[in-house]
Amino acid sequence: MWSRCSFGALRAHTHRYLLTPAFTQTVRFSCGTTTNMGAIGTRTVDTTERLAKLRELLKKPENNVKAFFVPSEDQHFSEYPAHSDERRAFISGFNGSAGCAIITLRDAFLFTDGRYFLQASQQLDSNWKLMKQGLPVEDVPTWQEFLSKHLEQGTRIGIDPTLISAADAESLKKSLEPRGSELVSLQQNPVDIVWGKDRPPCPHNSVFPLDIKYAAGETFQNKLQRLREEITKKNAVASVVTLLDEVAWLFNLRGTDIDFNPVFFAYAVVTPKEAILFMNDAQAQHSIKTFLGSDVEIRPYESFIPSLRQLTTTLGANKEKPMLLGDKTSLAVVEAIGQENAVLIPSPVAAMKAIKNKTEIEGFRKCHIRDGAALIRYFAWLEEQLNGGAELNESQAAAKLEEFRSELDLFRGLSFTTISSTGPNAAVIHYSPDPNDCAIIRKDQIYLCDSGGQYLDGTTDVTRTLHFGTPTDEEKRAFTRVLQGHISIDTAVFPIGTSGVDSFARRALWQEGWGNRYTFITPEYRHGTGHGVGHFLNVHEGPHGIGTRIAYNSTSLKAGMTVSNEPGYYADGRYGIRTESVVIVREAKTPNNFGNGYLCFERVTMCPIQTKLIDFSVLTAQEKEWLNSYHAETLEKVGPLLRNDRRALQWLERECSPV
Amino acid sequence: MWSRCSFGALRAHTHRYLLTPAFTQTVRFSCGTTTNMGAIGTRTVDTTERLAKLRELLKKPENNVKAFFVPSEDQHFSEYPAHSDERRAFISGFNGSAGCAIITLRDAFLFTDGRYFLQASQQLDSNWKLMKQGLPVEDVPTWQEFLSKHLEQGTRIGIDPTLISAADAESLKKSLEPRGSELVSLQQNPVDIVWGKDRPPCPHNSVFPLDIKYAAGETFQNKLQRLREEITKKNAVASVVTLLDEVAWLFNLRGTDIDFNPVFFAYAVVTPKEAILFMNDAQAQHSIKTFLGSDVEIRPYESFIPSLRQLTTTLGANKEKPMLLGDKTSLAVVEAIGQENAVLIPSPVAAMKAIKNKTEIEGFRKCHIRDGAALIRYFAWLEEQLNGGAELNESQAAAKLEEFRSELDLFRGLSFTTISSTGPNAAVIHYSPDPNDCAIIRKDQIYLCDSGGQYLDGTTDVTRTLHFGTPTDEEKRAFTRVLQGHISIDTAVFPIGTSGVDSFARRALWQEGWGNRYTFITPEYRHGTGHGVGHFLNVHEGPHGIGTRIAYNSTSLKAGMTVSNEPGYYADGRYGIRTESVVIVREAKTPNNFGNGYLCFERVTMCPIQTKLIDFSVLTAQEKEWLNSYHAETLEKVGPLLRNDRRALQWLERECSPV
Repeated sequence: MWSRCSFGALRAHTHRYLLTPAFTQTVRFSCGTTTNMGAIGTRTVDTTERLAKLRELLKKPENNVKAFFVPSEDQHFSEYPAHSDERRAFISGFNGSAGCAIITLRDAFLFTDGRYFLQASQQLDSNWKLMKQGLPVEDVPTWQEFLSKHLEQGTRIGIDPTLISAADAESLKKSLEPRGSELVSLQQNPVDIVWGKDRPPCPHNSVFPLDIKYAAGETFQNKLQRLREEITKKNAVASVVTLLDEVAWLFNLRGTDIDFNPVFFAYAVVTPKEAILFMNDAQAQHSIKTFLGSDVEIRPYESFIPSLRQLTTTLGANKEKPMLLGDKTSLAVVEAIGQENAVLIPSPVAAMKAIKNKTEIEGFRKCHIRDGAALIRYFAWLEEQLNGGAELNESQAAAKLEEFRSELDLFRGLSFTTISSTGPNAAVIHYSPDPNDCAIIRKDQIYLCDSGGQYLDGTTDVTRTLHFGTPTDEEKRAFTRVLQGHISIDTAVFPIGTSGVDSFARRALWQEGWGNRYTFITPEYRHGTGHGVGHFLNVHEGPHGIGTRIAYNSTSLKAGMTVSNEPGYYADGRYGIRTESVVIVREAKTPNNFGNGYLCFERVTMCPIQTKLIDFSVLTAQEKEWLNSYHAETLEKVGPLLRNDRRALQWLERECSPV
Repeated sequence: MWSRCSFGALRAHTHRYLLTPAFTQTVRFSCGTTTNMGAIGTRTVDTTERLAKLRELLKKPENNVKAFFVPSEDQHFSEYPAHSDERRAFISGFNGSAGCAIITLRDAFLFTDGRYFLQASQQLDSNWKLMKQGLPVEDVPTWQEFLSKHLEQGTRIGIDPTLISAADAESLKKSLEPRGSELVSLQQNPVDIVWGKDRPPCPHNSVFPLDIKYAAGETFQNKLQRLREEITKKNAVASVVTLLDEVAWLFNLRGTDIDFNPVFFAYAVVTPKEAILFMNDAQAQHSIKTFLGSDVEIRPYESFIPSLRQLTTTLGANKEKPMLLGDKTSLAVVEAIGQENAVLIPSPVAAMKAIKNKTEIEGFRKCHIRDGAALIRYFAWLEEQLNGGAELNESQAAAKLEEFRSELDLFRGLSFTTISSTGPNAAVIHYSPDPNDCAIIRKDQIYLCDSGGQYLDGTTDVTRTLHFGTPTDEEKRAFTRVLQGHISIDTAVFPIGTSGVDSFARRALWQEGWGNRYTFITPEYRHGTGHGVGHFLNVHEGPHGIGTRIAYNSTSLKAGMTVSNEPGYYADGRYGIRTESVVIVREAKTPNNFGNGYLCFERVTMCPIQTKLIDFSVLTAQEKEWLNSYHAETLEKVGPLLRNDRRALQWLERECSPV
């Protein structure tokens, strides 16, 4: 599953809430539509009163700013800012998944891209001016240009420091310097004050420890030890862990505070001698305290920022012996510690977490076989339904898939909202069907299903594209070119340290004059071929991936990493194709071993690739061989799990027939 | 032809000379051995007296420096410094192709890499300390570290500003700042003063205009007009053209001042109204003056630097309306203009020159067919010789190839020293056989021949690897993996703006655990898969190429560019393999055209690829098809030129038999 706006994101579609400013958690929410804002396209909010109240707050002496900036959650693919979109939706009325707002004492501007021009123009009232981004013909400034060049000289621009990473804030500050403007961290987010008690509360659901032998594979004590070695190596006094999945991984704990992502609200500070976990009192049950024992001190979640200030002093953090912060840490955390006492580096916890241990790898293999069984049962059922003339919409079908998954051992929920999409909807990359208003699945259209589950032993993310009728020649050609890219990645062998495999996924599509999806939509809309996958954690995790992102070039793949292999092709308004499997990076056994060693991929996703959609005129003999071998493996591994579903087993056997 | 040390380089093997300091030409010489310094490995120079004289000069009030730095010509793959190696060879006695020297008032240090440790230790006398670079076990500082950290604080370090690019000087100055040391441009190179009248004179060979209709394809007036548009677009007052091939291209002139590169010593300054060509009086014959007419003012070569100073004033160059300089311009030129009046940018002339016009492209096609005929005649002859038991050394064989080439229409010399190498010598990437001491070509070894010619209608550069006996399985596997990379590049289709095709050349090698040559030797020794090729100009030209260099990522391929396709594999001490053809970048006619358009390659080199060396077990059906189609094309195009060489025609027919 790829999503423009949610690399490493945590998603919450069902229930929506926001944290008080004290909860400066580095977590992001859904790219989907907010359910409390009304359906897309409906103007539900008159923002006059909200804006008036907000402007009064901006003028107050403790703030004294002439503008307030609400950043977009997905800018620069960073994990920041946290919860920003909800605030923007509340204050502007526009609830699309991408956009930022700038409110001055007189005007209000909403910046968004082409995907949301219609929605924004319908949802914004006359208090707002829509700033259409990415249109070369119109001379609309970007929000960066607007802040740095269009606002008056010497403007104090307010920001909520919990909504922006320290790194992004730094570059923003630099761009403001030439005009003498400055970014001012406000004590409390004025949008929150306006919103008041109506803001949804924060969940405090149960937290549970992970089994070491069957799930985690390594004690938290050992992980802490490894982190302490990093702290010593970096000559630091402590490591501050701010990302939810990093805290969960580090302590072998999981939660259910956020849909799709088995995490809970927490922070941690690890020193050479101490490990302090900041979590909600209500969630720190007796069992958790027993599990963590004397190795970890639990402190209240609310005490994090004051504790940070105090720890900075107690530990004597300074330039020579700093606190280690991940490079996505919020401005609020950096300000609490003091920039001079901190060093921002690629998170050492992320680097440790990315490389899966033997138990996690074995779990990945096992849960993908089970997950494959649910998918196969689903596709067999769907085919029968459609052949029988049933009228099923995309959401109803997705619900059936969830039902099949929920019957599986160790299932703990979906890993993201199922993308169940027919025809033109399949071309919408971050599509998810609205249960109340979505398309009927048609036999004469491509059907794309991108879905995944959370299991105690791993996380899955798989896309298969099918046609239940007769595909067109073009659809077959596109499907085959995508498949060739998928196979080219799957079979690649490459030297350790190389970041150049991404073009293997695109070569076949290029032959047709089909840029891989993303490549050409807009310059900033370039996605890669694969993202990291967490182990019973976020379905998207960094720092690695396959693609052209700068981060990927500086973070090469390493043995033990898990990554998706998902080339795609999107014919706007007509159909979309994606073939996605999860692969594990492994050492390659090459005949020679010139250099520092070679890597290859082990596929773990087990679900047939529809041969009906293949244009055999362009497939090579080697590619056919690959397909037959993959199908034989899938049949062998998943077949035994389908003893009680004759329809699914027959479907699997048919789909796995050699070509 | 790839060479570590000569990207864009001009080569001069036969006669060697050096310019006086007034000749601040941006030109580089051979990577080979200097012929006036005695054979490799022989100590011929006692440097005591030279160093004593040099140190006296350093101490003089007009210099007043405590150290003198003679940079290496090949550092950072820049085209700088010019003529530096000869000076270093004179003052140190070491005449290898890579190395730099630092002479202080007390000591003298020579820095070179592993290829030259033996040679340097034999050639340097006791006045010199050899600083072995690239050995991680020994704690030898790099020359940068030496200058910035080992010299006394506050050292004034002398440099000849004609020998270093302004950009390199800038970064060097920055590294010296922390210790308060500084780089001082000396008025005259003290090595030259010590050398005195014994320095070889500069050649002033004839210069001739290029035929517009059959060779240049565009009048120089039109080129000047296009350059003037660039000047206006950049809001500049003039463009200073300092590279020899750029001057030659701009004025449709060619010369023979430098072996292998049909250029002559010249500079140019182009303003919106004027075009001034600085060239030697002796070379500015009547025919040249007639050709250039009133559009170009010719001034003496020696007047360039004084003229620059004067033009800066006359044209009123300043920060807002600067002089445009190519980013490889020497410190001397920048100092003459004044840094505040100049802007260093990627050369606009290089960008124009890189895209070949229709006439040039047609010339490329034609000269490659003729060139192929010479190569085929040579290989057929060589095979017969070896089968007949002849004892031929690498250099004798190369001479025969030159003989065949010299019989061709429009031939104007070789484009570089022929790399004629047997067995282990083929693994030495910048090998060129010493006529007095080189290996006998053996039937039981790989033979690698990398060569090219200069023709009035184009420049060639081709490598073929052959075996005249029975190759080993490993040799065949390596040859085939290289060939697969070559085919993968040749058949690639890619979107305009993409720089990710390089890994296509490496994929097949990686499958074997064989990093492409260069990839793993040392981190800085990473070369690409292809370099730009001039049109009856330097065989290496920028700014484009295929590879992982940063420059290539910022300069994407464009239709009309010429580039080599030369993956290789090098088994150190045993054999080397390279298959190189020149290709023209063309618009691809793809079934679809999603995005901004697609590019592909048109191969123009016409010479068989030895099928005897192919391991057919790994070749795909598509690759066999490619090979047969290439051979059919080669036979059809070159066959008719071999009417008078029955042996060559038979060889060609045999080598082009379908597989």
